[in-house]
Amino acid sequence: MRVAVNNEISSDGGDIEQYMAQLGRQARAAAEILAQTDPEAKNDALLKIAEAINQQRELIKAENQKDMRDAELNGLDAALLDRLLLSDARIDAMIEGLRQIVSLPDPVGEISELEYRPSGIQVGKMRVPLGVIGIIYESRPNVTIDAAALCLKSGNASILRGGKEAINSNQAIYQCIKQGLKLAGLPQTCVQVINTIDRSAVGLMLNMQESIDVIIPRGGKSLIERVSSEASIPVIKHLDGLCHVYIDDGANLSKAFDIALNAKTRRYGVCNAMETLLVAESVAKDFLPDMISGLIEKGVELRGSASTRQYNPDAIGVASDEDWETEYLAPILSIKIVDGLEQAITHINHHGSHHTDAIVTEDYSRARQFLRRVDSSSVMVNASTTFSDGFEYGLGAEIGISTDKLHARGPVGLKGLTSQKYIVYGDGHIRH
Amino acid sequence: MRVAVNNEISSDGGDIEQYMAQLGRQARAAAEILAQTDPEAKNDALLKIAEAINQQRELIKAENQKDMRDAELNGLDAALLDRLLLSDARIDAMIEGLRQIVSLPDPVGEISELEYRPSGIQVGKMRVPLGVIGIIYESRPNVTIDAAALCLKSGNASILRGGKEAINSNQAIYQCIKQGLKLAGLPQTCVQVINTIDRSAVGLMLNMQESIDVIIPRGGKSLIERVSSEASIPVIKHLDGLCHVYIDDGANLSKAFDIALNAKTRRYGVCNAMETLLVAESVAKDFLPDMISGLIEKGVELRGSASTRQYNPDAIGVASDEDWETEYLAPILSIKIVDGLEQAITHINHHGSHHTDAIVTEDYSRARQFLRRVDSSSVMVNASTTFSDGFEYGLGAEIGISTDKLHARGPVGLKGLTSQKYIVYGDGHIRH
Repeated sequence: MRVAVNNEISSDGGDIEQYMAQLGRQARAAAEILAQTDPEAKNDALLKIAEAINQQRELIKAENQKDMRDAELNGLDAALLDRLLLSDARIDAMIEGLRQIVSLPDPVGEISELEYRPSGIQVGKMRVPLGVIGIIYESRPNVTIDAAALCLKSGNASILRGGKEAINSNQAIYQCIKQGLKLAGLPQTCVQVINTIDRSAVGLMLNMQESIDVIIPRGGKSLIERVSSEASIPVIKHLDGLCHVYIDDGANLSKAFDIALNAKTRRYGVCNAMETLLVAESVAKDFLPDMISGLIEKGVELRGSASTRQYNPDAIGVASDEDWETEYLAPILSIKIVDGLEQAITHINHHGSHHTDAIVTEDYSRARQFLRRVDSSSVMVNASTTFSDGFEYGLGAEIGISTDKLHARGPVGLKGLTSQKYIVYGDGHIRH
Repeated sequence: MRVAVNNEISSDGGDIEQYMAQLGRQARAAAEILAQTDPEAKNDALLKIAEAINQQRELIKAENQKDMRDAELNGLDAALLDRLLLSDARIDAMIEGLRQIVSLPDPVGEISELEYRPSGIQVGKMRVPLGVIGIIYESRPNVTIDAAALCLKSGNASILRGGKEAINSNQAIYQCIKQGLKLAGLPQTCVQVINTIDRSAVGLMLNMQESIDVIIPRGGKSLIERVSSEASIPVIKHLDGLCHVYIDDGANLSKAFDIALNAKTRRYGVCNAMETLLVAESVAKDFLPDMISGLIEKGVELRGSASTRQYNPDAIGVASDEDWETEYLAPILSIKIVDGLEQAITHINHHGSHHTDAIVTEDYSRARQFLRRVDSSSVMVNASTTFSDGFEYGLGAEIGISTDKLHARGPVGLKGLTSQKYIVYGDGHIRH
């Protein structure tokens, strides 16, 4: 085990609890300073971090190569290796991402809804940071910079724990972050990247109620489930993205074709891709033959209900009950013919993951019903589910997409990393 | 043990798990209906409940008398007996409370921030209920009607668990709630009041992740701590109300006197009462003698730091370290002289409970600093902490005051019982 606190490598392998507790105390202290840091200083730090990354890109790539070699020796699969790799293009994207975050408005201190009350006091809300954010993610070193930057801009101290395969890459990036913070006059402990591959660090982190205000896991379902079940701290989480497109009786079938094809085939491994296509019975005959051909042409494997399969029994496999609840993240699609709106809404609310669901219809009342009644973080009319994304929604950047109900639903941007406190202005007012 | 499901008393004492699971399923089903119920039907139900309570007030009082007799036999103390009692005046207040909630705007379905994005889609937010809310409270039967009404109006199904001493009162009130729901054509399971005094019901409730979306404990600190530590469901909680008033160097001392006196003496047993008075050293000599006399005149026991005690060593006791962290909820006040703003902010953020804190000052820069840097759910300038209240803030009603950071801070009204989902309007838009 490698434990480093303030750049000192500890020789004692048993002090992981002390190490984590120290990170927590340092984060809490840094959060108090960051909460009152003005936007200029935070932006300055972000730009200085970008410069440091640019200057030290050879070092970062060399450290990343160490991780890559170890990962290859350990037999990591190709997809994971790809995520671990830091190419020049990815480093450029990290730098560009930092500059974009600089250009976003600072959410902290925003005052809204200031109104005079009958008593004479003026009551409003002020946006404030959450405090200390813990982020747990997989072996994707670009997440380190992304998460650090979003937390910093929103005035939160962060404790970051990346996957063990990326430890050298993450520490190289962290050196750049520390350099940028220092040059901007901010405590280096505003961001802390856990420097040990000891797995118990995660368990400790999930229960540091005194020093961490919220945990955000970023990664696959098993990571998120572990974090949710073990954490005693509030978690902002994103479970499945089991998205539906429902082609309504009143759909314009040309729009329906384009939207469904885009929702399934734009990218397969993303959470906002369609996994189940629902088609109203009355339009199935006119809609499905072309749609099926279009999807097959793109190489999508189809699985359907019995009434769907009759359109092409050779090309459409049998959808089992499990298919309606599976996030394929692959060129596979389940298709179901439904009676109409009611059955579609019921199917979506019961089998879906409350992520993103769309209706295609020209019918005003049914569009309204769908918007109101589908219980998902994003509900769309005549648009592709692939738009469900922080950048597309104008948040500028996102730390993830929340499928929770409390605090934040849908893409979580800078504002999602803040809270609002009440402020009251008086002039000597007392309550009678 | 008394277990009733759908008015059938079960003879089997061992089926509490089944009973709770059934309440959960029923609540989930009712929540789906309530989420799409229009404002008229919800208001109609609230008015019908008010009528039923008015008509059945003798029955309610008779059931309450049973609880009172049992409580007296069990030696409940006077304060608890007072909270348990349902007088005509309290029943009138319950009815008036229902009418006030009817008059509030319906939060559900509110669409805001609809903006066109460069891609051509229009993105906004729609306010939606949280789903099923579990409320755990003490033996105060008026909370039953208050909690049921706020959840109903905000489109949430509720499962209510009151203190065991109030079981007969609560069930009498619940009969009125069911009657009102029925007359308005809503499922009676929109509100469910747990009809058993088996304590294991609470433990079960705190872990019904499938059927309860959020738990709100209302009551003393021990209840809230138990709920927070045992719940696997998100909790909106209110721990202490350890409120401070800081009299700054730049204070108008006449306003300071009025605000401090009001903050401490308006009511003692409430969470927004001042518990610690902080006074800047430079004004202590001019301010404290009158303030001390005023407080003593009101019968307030004073405990002070050494420098404070010199103003009246006979009347001011010694404040121990513990005093700075104690919510007295009584006519007791701790007083500390501080160097100035910096020390005041540090004291408040470290010893306070992040509830409500006020500065009295005419100094623009220090007022701004205090507002920004005090990490409490309500931060005030030149106003009494006693204004920290849902009615005073214009929320119309409150289910409690949150000292949490996520989701809701400060008084939680109807909007605090809702969430926002994203909605997207397109016209066949696909993402390139």
